[in-house]
Amino acid sequence: MSTPPRLRLLGIDPGLRITGYGVVDFIQGQCQYVASGVVRTVAEAPLATRLHTLFTSVVELCAQYQPQVAVVEKVFVNVNPQSTLLLGHARGAVLTALSHGGNGGFDGGVAIVEYTALQIKQAVVGHGKAQKHQVQEMVKRLLNLPTAPSTDAADALAAALTHAQSHGLVNVLAGKAPAHSAFKTGKRRGRFGWGAS
Amino acid sequence: MSTPPRLRLLGIDPGLRITGYGVVDFIQGQCQYVASGVVRTVAEAPLATRLHTLFTSVVELCAQYQPQVAVVEKVFVNVNPQSTLLLGHARGAVLTALSHGGNGGFDGGVAIVEYTALQIKQAVVGHGKAQKHQVQEMVKRLLNLPTAPSTDAADALAAALTHAQSHGLVNVLAGKAPAHSAFKTGKRRGRFGWGAS
Repeated sequence: MSTPPRLRLLGIDPGLRITGYGVVDFIQGQCQYVASGVVRTVAEAPLATRLHTLFTSVVELCAQYQPQVAVVEKVFVNVNPQSTLLLGHARGAVLTALSHGGNGGFDGGVAIVEYTALQIKQAVVGHGKAQKHQVQEMVKRLLNLPTAPSTDAADALAAALTHAQSHGLVNVLAGKAPAHSAFKTGKRRGRFGWGAS
Repeated sequence: MSTPPRLRLLGIDPGLRITGYGVVDFIQGQCQYVASGVVRTVAEAPLATRLHTLFTSVVELCAQYQPQVAVVEKVFVNVNPQSTLLLGHARGAVLTALSHGGNGGFDGGVAIVEYTALQIKQAVVGHGKAQKHQVQEMVKRLLNLPTAPSTDAADALAAALTHAQSHGLVNVLAGKAPAHSAFKTGKRRGRFGWGAS
């Protein structure tokens, strides 16, 4: 018997101080939690050193988990232009790392897709103004986790789940989705099975 | 006879479309042009691919020229927040590359210093509102080049020269500096010898 095809997604929520990541597998319309966590950089370290920490960590994540698709939270300009600039630096390091990984760091390469925080919240919680704890709670339920991941890891996992929804990677299994699932919203009106078995 | 100590500076003017670079040596109070040019990225390519082009190019420059110090133009927030964000991405890729090079890409590591465009223009031309062509002309004279470098390469070379001035790497050699040298301004009131011999 051949192994069913698996799609592995690496969700990333980039930030200079904390970058969240989450790895999720999609097999036969079911999603399965693989790993999640955060990369922290030392606030007192030089900017270039902090960016390099992000870079090497993401390259290592690619090498370790070999995702086929990376899902990165798209950012918009911040109220504070200086914060926008710094977030741009962090995102630059993360995207460079994903492209680096894909260019030889691991086999098969990695496609990069982006979603805004609004799209992610809408997909996972059901409305774009969802609170952090609501995202955490939904990620916990959808992935059948014993405890909720940290906010940054949850955002990264939510990014991966958003891509799965928008690309129909999960089956429409009426009644199998958690009651709170927001995946009935959007263009696809059916409920999605989140492999909570 | 032992070789006189040499300090090699790599100036960088980061940009997503065009990143200028310039390599200058300082030996016994004299500056010497080594190389300069630009790294261009394809506007139609995905952002991550463009950032990776910047990254690999800067890593290669570090490996090829083995600078001890990298001098990067510091940026301020742009009028257009979206441009600020993109410039942040490009700068993130460049700083990551400099840190990457320094962490094993070549021997000795690279220290990173930053100057604003204002500081660079002030140091090289004499006033912060200098035009691009004035920077090009002064870089050409100070480095005794047959023709003026492109604007982006000139900005990168000017960044390297600024560091040399602010750190007193060039000797005060009255009468040896070009007549147009702005290096009589600032705290150090003497003229600097720019190795135009």
